[in-house]
Amino acid sequence: MNKPLIGLMLGDMTGIGPEICAKVLASGAVNDLARVIVIGDARVLELGIRDAGVKLGYRTCASVEEARWPAESVPLVDLRNIDPDRIKRGEVSDESGRLTGETLKHMIELAGASRLDAICFAPLNKMALHRGGWKFHDEHQMFANLTGHEGFYGEMNVIPQFSTFRVTSHVALREAVNLVTPERVTGAILLADANLRAMGHEHPRIGVAALNPHNGENGLFGDEEIRIIRPAVDKLRGQGIGCTGPISSDTIFVRTLKGEFDGVVMMYHDQGQIATKLIGFNKGVTVTAGMKTVFTTPAHGTAFDIVGQGRADPGSLQYALTLAAKLAATRTSRAA
Amino acid sequence: MNKPLIGLMLGDMTGIGPEICAKVLASGAVNDLARVIVIGDARVLELGIRDAGVKLGYRTCASVEEARWPAESVPLVDLRNIDPDRIKRGEVSDESGRLTGETLKHMIELAGASRLDAICFAPLNKMALHRGGWKFHDEHQMFANLTGHEGFYGEMNVIPQFSTFRVTSHVALREAVNLVTPERVTGAILLADANLRAMGHEHPRIGVAALNPHNGENGLFGDEEIRIIRPAVDKLRGQGIGCTGPISSDTIFVRTLKGEFDGVVMMYHDQGQIATKLIGFNKGVTVTAGMKTVFTTPAHGTAFDIVGQGRADPGSLQYALTLAAKLAATRTSRAA
Repeated sequence: MNKPLIGLMLGDMTGIGPEICAKVLASGAVNDLARVIVIGDARVLELGIRDAGVKLGYRTCASVEEARWPAESVPLVDLRNIDPDRIKRGEVSDESGRLTGETLKHMIELAGASRLDAICFAPLNKMALHRGGWKFHDEHQMFANLTGHEGFYGEMNVIPQFSTFRVTSHVALREAVNLVTPERVTGAILLADANLRAMGHEHPRIGVAALNPHNGENGLFGDEEIRIIRPAVDKLRGQGIGCTGPISSDTIFVRTLKGEFDGVVMMYHDQGQIATKLIGFNKGVTVTAGMKTVFTTPAHGTAFDIVGQGRADPGSLQYALTLAAKLAATRTSRAA
Repeated sequence: MNKPLIGLMLGDMTGIGPEICAKVLASGAVNDLARVIVIGDARVLELGIRDAGVKLGYRTCASVEEARWPAESVPLVDLRNIDPDRIKRGEVSDESGRLTGETLKHMIELAGASRLDAICFAPLNKMALHRGGWKFHDEHQMFANLTGHEGFYGEMNVIPQFSTFRVTSHVALREAVNLVTPERVTGAILLADANLRAMGHEHPRIGVAALNPHNGENGLFGDEEIRIIRPAVDKLRGQGIGCTGPISSDTIFVRTLKGEFDGVVMMYHDQGQIATKLIGFNKGVTVTAGMKTVFTTPAHGTAFDIVGQGRADPGSLQYALTLAAKLAATRTSRAA
C-alpha cells in the first residue's frame, strides 16, 4: 500500500492520448510500481479503449480516496467535463485545449492537497491549450503558476541513455544568453543532481555544456564560460556535486553517449534538443522538475496523423508512468 | 590531362598528417580524379611513409610546373623548411605552427597565381598556428586574409549524409544572434546552392534552420525568423533556389537524415556541429567555401594520442582530396 498514487490524465482527447492510456492500463505494466487512478471523463477513456482494441474494466469513484487497492478494475474519477461527440479529433480544438487545462488544474489542486503523489499526462496540444485560454510559454510555466511555485524549476528530458536539464528554455536565443547567470546555472545543476539521485543514480555524473562555440576558445569567442559557468561548476564540485564543465556543446553529447555522464545541463533549448531528437527523443519522457508535485509526460505529441487507428505506441507513456512512480517514491520516502 | 591539380599539404607535422598523406598517396585512390602534388618538406613526407609502413616513391620537382603527368612517383615540391628532428611530435609546437602557416601561405600564393587548382591539407593544430604567430579565429579567416578575399565565405562541413553551411561561426553566441542579417542568411544559402551543385546535386535541396527554439513559436520566442530568415528564404525561392525554412533546429537534422535535404544552412556554430558530430562528423570533410581557391581538409584533428603508431585512418583525407577534385573540376569547367 506504500506504492505512490499517480493521477493519470488522458491527454488532449483530439490526439492519441486516450488510446495509449488504455493500452498501458490494460497491460498492467506499472501495477508493481504504482497505484494509478484515471482522472478525466469516462467517455474519453471508453473512446481510448475502443481505439486500442483492448479489454479494460474501470470503476468510477466519487473521489481519489474512494479507490480501493489493489484494484481489480482501474479506478476513475469521472469529471464528466468532456463529451467526445462534440469535439472533432485529429486537429487542434480550442475547446479541447480549454477542457484539457481544466482537468490539469483540478489534478494540480488534488496534488497540492497531497491527495495525489504525482501527475502523469498523455500528450497535450500546446496550441490548443494556448487558444483555449491557458496563456503560458509551456506547460511547465502553467504548472508553476497553478501551484504557486517559487524558485528554480525546469523541463527535464529523459531518454534511456541520459537526461538533460535546462538553464534556459522557451525564450529567444538573444534573451537566453542573458539568462545564463550563476544562479540559474547553479539551480539547473542542483536540479539535475536531485533528480538523477531520485532516478537511482547514487553519485550522479553531470556534464555541463558551454554556451559559446569551442567552449569560448579561452575567451576568444565569449567569456560566459570563464565568468559564469566554470565558477559555478567549481563551487558545486567543492560541495561534493559530481559536475564537470563547461564542455563544448558539440562534444558533450558524444561523450555522454559513450557513458561518461548520467545527465547534461544545457544552456539553451536547442543545444540538448538537437542531440536528443537525433538519438531518439520521441521514445523519451519529459518531466517538470523542481516543483512539489512530480509531473511526467511522453516526449512525443498528439500524433494527429494516426488518431483512432489503434497503431499508437504506448511505450513512452509507460516509461513516463514508471518515472513518475520512481520520482514520487523517493520524495515520499524522504518526507517520511 | 584535364584533371585538377591539387596541392597536398602534409598538415601540422606533430600530428597524424604525414602518416595519412602517405597512406592515401600509396593507395593511388584519387589518381583517376586528380593530379596530386605534395608541397612541403621531403623529410616530413618520409616520416609519414615510415609511420604508415607503406612503400611510396616520390620525385622532387623544383616547381609545380616541373611535375610530369601521369606521374610514376608522387611529385613533391620540397620546401626544406621543416626538420622533423627538431620538433617533438604528439604535442603542440609553436614552431611547427609557425612553419605550417608558412607552408600554407606559400601554397595560397601558388593557387592565387593559378598554379594550383585546389589546396587539400592534412589536420592543422589551431593552437599551434595561433601561438606560431597566425592570429586568426580559424583557418578560414586566415585564408581570407592571405587571399585578400572580399565578400561572403564560410566553413562548409561535409558528411556522407549531407553538408552544412554557416551564417555565423567562430564568434560568441551573443554576437552570433546580431550577425543573423538578411545579407548573411542570403550569402550562406547561395554558398550552399553553389557548392552543392559543384558536388553534383543538380537541384540542391537546402533546409534553413531557425535561430530560436520552436522556430520562434510565431514570434513568442524571438522574431528573427519572421523579420529576417523567412523573407530571405522566400526571396531566394522566388529566384529559383531550392531552399526551405526556417525550420526548428531540433527537427531539421532529423528530416535531413531522412533524406529531405542535401544541405542545411545553420545560424550558429553548435547548431550544426552538435548534429554532425553525433552522426559521425570525424569521418567528414571541412571545406572553406566561397573563395577563389578551393580548400578542403579532414574534419578530424591531429590526433596526438596515436601519432607515430601507424593506426591513423586515412579515410577522411581521401574524401577531402576527392571533394577538392570535384569542386575544382566544376570551377575549371565553368571558367573554360
